[in-house]
Amino acid sequence: MTTTNITSDAGTAALLAAVEAGVRVYDLGRRLTIGMPQSPNHPPFWHALPRRHGDAVRPDGGSAANDIITMGTHVGTHIDAFSHVSQDGRLLDGSDAADAGRGGRYPDLGAHTIAPIVRRGVLLDVPAALGLPDGCEPGYEITPADLSSAADRQGTPLRPGDVALVRSGWGRLFDHEDRTRYIGHTTGVPGVGEAGATWLADQGVHAVGADTIAFECLPPGAGHSVLPAHRVLLVERGVYIIETMALEELAADNVHEFLFVLSPLAIFGATGSPVRPLAVVARV
Amino acid sequence: MTTTNITSDAGTAALLAAVEAGVRVYDLGRRLTIGMPQSPNHPPFWHALPRRHGDAVRPDGGSAANDIITMGTHVGTHIDAFSHVSQDGRLLDGSDAADAGRGGRYPDLGAHTIAPIVRRGVLLDVPAALGLPDGCEPGYEITPADLSSAADRQGTPLRPGDVALVRSGWGRLFDHEDRTRYIGHTTGVPGVGEAGATWLADQGVHAVGADTIAFECLPPGAGHSVLPAHRVLLVERGVYIIETMALEELAADNVHEFLFVLSPLAIFGATGSPVRPLAVVARV
Amino acid sequence: MTTTNITSDAGTAALLAAVEAGVRVYDLGRRLTIGMPQSPNHPPFWHALPRRHGDAVRPDGGSAANDIITMGTHVGTHIDAFSHVSQDGRLLDGSDAADAGRGGRYPDLGAHTIAPIVRRGVLLDVPAALGLPDGCEPGYEITPADLSSAADRQGTPLRPGDVALVRSGWGRLFDHEDRTRYIGHTTGVPGVGEAGATWLADQGVHAVGADTIAFECLPPGAGHSVLPAHRVLLVERGVYIIETMALEELAADNVHEFLFVLSPLAIFGATGSPVRPLAVVARV
Amino acid sequence: MTTTNITSDAGTAALLAAVEAGVRVYDLGRRLTIGMPQSPNHPPFWHALPRRHGDAVRPDGGSAANDIITMGTHVGTHIDAFSHVSQDGRLLDGSDAADAGRGGRYPDLGAHTIAPIVRRGVLLDVPAALGLPDGCEPGYEITPADLSSAADRQGTPLRPGDVALVRSGWGRLFDHEDRTRYIGHTTGVPGVGEAGATWLADQGVHAVGADTIAFECLPPGAGHSVLPAHRVLLVERGVYIIETMALEELAADNVHEFLFVLSPLAIFGATGSPVRPLAVVARV
Repeated sequence: MTTTNITSDAGTAALLAAVEAGVRVYDLGRRLTIGMPQSPNHPPFWHALPRRHGDAVRPDGGSAANDIITMGTHVGTHIDAFSHVSQDGRLLDGSDAADAGRGGRYPDLGAHTIAPIVRRGVLLDVPAALGLPDGCEPGYEITPADLSSAADRQGTPLRPGDVALVRSGWGRLFDHEDRTRYIGHTTGVPGVGEAGATWLADQGVHAVGADTIAFECLPPGAGHSVLPAHRVLLVERGVYIIETMALEELAADNVHEFLFVLSPLAIFGATGSPVRPLAVVARV
Repeated sequence: MTTTNITSDAGTAALLAAVEAGVRVYDLGRRLTIGMPQSPNHPPFWHALPRRHGDAVRPDGGSAANDIITMGTHVGTHIDAFSHVSQDGRLLDGSDAADAGRGGRYPDLGAHTIAPIVRRGVLLDVPAALGLPDGCEPGYEITPADLSSAADRQGTPLRPGDVALVRSGWGRLFDHEDRTRYIGHTTGVPGVGEAGATWLADQGVHAVGADTIAFECLPPGAGHSVLPAHRVLLVERGVYIIETMALEELAADNVHEFLFVLSPLAIFGATGSPVRPLAVVARV
Repeated sequence: MTTTNITSDAGTAALLAAVEAGVRVYDLGRRLTIGMPQSPNHPPFWHALPRRHGDAVRPDGGSAANDIITMGTHVGTHIDAFSHVSQDGRLLDGSDAADAGRGGRYPDLGAHTIAPIVRRGVLLDVPAALGLPDGCEPGYEITPADLSSAADRQGTPLRPGDVALVRSGWGRLFDHEDRTRYIGHTTGVPGVGEAGATWLADQGVHAVGADTIAFECLPPGAGHSVLPAHRVLLVERGVYIIETMALEELAADNVHEFLFVLSPLAIFGATGSPVRPLAVVARV
Repeated sequence: MTTTNITSDAGTAALLAAVEAGVRVYDLGRRLTIGMPQSPNHPPFWHALPRRHGDAVRPDGGSAANDIITMGTHVGTHIDAFSHVSQDGRLLDGSDAADAGRGGRYPDLGAHTIAPIVRRGVLLDVPAALGLPDGCEPGYEITPADLSSAADRQGTPLRPGDVALVRSGWGRLFDHEDRTRYIGHTTGVPGVGEAGATWLADQGVHAVGADTIAFECLPPGAGHSVLPAHRVLLVERGVYIIETMALEELAADNVHEFLFVLSPLAIFGATGSPVRPLAVVARV
């Protein structure tokens, strides 16, 4: 019997060789812990062990511990599905948004429809481009010029199909002991606005991400009441949004270009998924 | 001001070039749906939309829908952390298993300690090697000879650090209308036993996976009462286990070697994580 | 300063005297345990201890353990709110059923609108009336004549405002080791049908209950696909339904008339609530 | 065939007559709503509708909506089981607290062991006794003299077996738009201290309750770090504690003595249960 191993070809071998030559994998996800900062609009992350070792041991001396978790899909590091946001009653595909969710799930644009992402990623380090060692100010709107200047400075122009990660520097507040600081409802949060979102979509990016909870600029005191960048990206242009990313390590290492990998849980009909995105680079 | 872009070197460029030359990404995860087959030992997956489009529209015409999920971490496609199983009161690191979980989490061997996996993956297609078009029989114990024969037949010997995915053919039952079939408590489920697990560990693999709910062979009627392969892999040898994988597509396409990527949620102190593993190959 | 203790009047004193003369309180609720029988249509009950004693002790030597629970509201012993069922797109109050739940809750007919019940209760012991020591047959439809005959035999005619609890004898299966027996999807479950529900409503009862999971007769193999008694009671007549009750002890003691007390959790906008109903009688 | 209706005796008839003469039922529970004030130490209350009317209509024109809830058992109005608190490694029954919860539940002192309460209840209106129309000050420790004075003023001395509800006036903050006010971590919360708890236990009460989240006095800034009244009541004296009660209506109506009814969910092995307690008085 003969078989044809169709894909163990030169291409896959080259891919594996590139990886096996040594890569560094940056973890761009936040740890999921009880009490971590998150929007009060979403069910919080909670975790418990229904069974622990020591509870019951099988006759063979073995035991298994297990978990229960309960959470929203827009807490911790996560990706928004296109079903997450509507504008004037319509979703990205033009469907009636109220009808689309009848049945308690979004079969057409739910999280299960987000294909795993294996693409070129670019970090746009805005504070580095603007000379702001402490990061962007609360509520600062990152402009197209800021984004463009960051890409230029780094020598990493965006290309169609890329994933663009916008660093504002705000991520350093994620571990602040005052859990409300990162949310920033009173102070505002830096991020792109409508113009920046449009510029990113115009570059043809597949997805965008940021080190903040809402990706986009939140003016002080505004909460999450107006989200024009979400509208542009999720409803008008079909660009995924990744939020609450950990980008400090990439920035510290001046890693601006990488293989970006993100594999959302295929939660049928959901509006998003918790994720742990990766940036893979050759180890120097 | 000059900056050193230390990692956009030739290596990363080669990696990106290999990807951008065209890859196919196989999705090795199962869809998370209410009512999918899962072990009754674990909290079942459930999902609901607290907010749907049409519930409330902001003054700017926008609306956001969101989710709540509740689940165990050993339901759907998932990876076991080393904290999942103990033997004779000890975990992999020799620590006292009962003590290790004091506080309601496993800080040392929890899911958050599983580094993202970016490694060579090998599918061991056992039914193909054994000439069983309908897959292995319920309760069949896959032997080291079976595994070795599959690797040989495919021309894909295991190498240290690899991820070895053992296909039994059982995965076709995942979507069976009788949800108990896949669980197989009465029929038994095929998989490796202690000998197969030891052989895999002896090859130096980093992780193993299978298309069944418990990875290892379950004799008919035994439930999950004795799990020697879990002991060998998780407690004695430090090899991660990935369960409930979707391997049929890889097998149908004769894809036996690939770049394997798995990025578990960093759930602090948990005993496992739901995942959506990927197999990346060059597109021919 | 003088105060008027307006309600510590003779009436309340008499009420307290009646209680303090000695009462027996029958517990008509089922224990909430992981794995108990419940409809697969609803999120199952699950429980875990996020914190246990021994996890962390405060400097003063104290510690507190706590819980997480996740569940549907139609699992275990529970009461249906009028928001639970609609017919031809309408709820009990004539409102559009789809509109009524916009916002993810039912503000007008939700569980929070169920006033606590403190009323005369009557057990209608149908198997006793029919001379069936093993209880009604699976799928048996309890008729108005059966109900009437039970009330007559007991000497406890129904009065307007009462709570009528219909015992079928099926409750003995709640603890059966085969958890599917109580649900009875294949066998059917005894209970009133449309005629019995109408008769009960015609007596002017405030609420009805039964020792089964769906209150009403389920023909073999029908699942929960047609529920005429629910329509009559919840949509047409405004009679609450209490399900999965424990009625065996009342029956064994020949207690057919009692003070019935039920205090649902005021879950805002929910379609039901888990409850633990009580039957209070004078201790003889 | 003759039957003996053993309990439809004069006693039960008198009880029913007392109720049917007209009673007023005070609802002493808080509504369960998303975002209500609760301790951050416990899993928050969340609710969603997996199915709504309009999602799917059966062929007969009927539809059913349902819920999922996830929560701790010490959120909203709730009762503490004796398993909730330990002191120096011991529970109320002298058992080793760490051992008692092995298995992930407390079989001996869990919520399922709390018998339904049908007893005389007394409201101790402390602000009325102290002449404080705005309620007790934040962090004020209610003394035995305060409690005694309230009972005297009202003419409702405590009797063994009673349920004593201590009103501090703090309950008015439950609906404050700043959800942190009711929790009072920075301001402190009024309540009894060790002395008051001891005095209450010395009166032989069966259970105590209050209109605050922790029943006992919390000094400003102390959080929930030292809880002597919990120790006295739950570990030393065997007196149940009910928290987050709604007592304003009783106070406004000068209702100080009543039939108190509380029926906790029989959550097997849990440390507490959400409840909706009732005060029943004769309608004047």
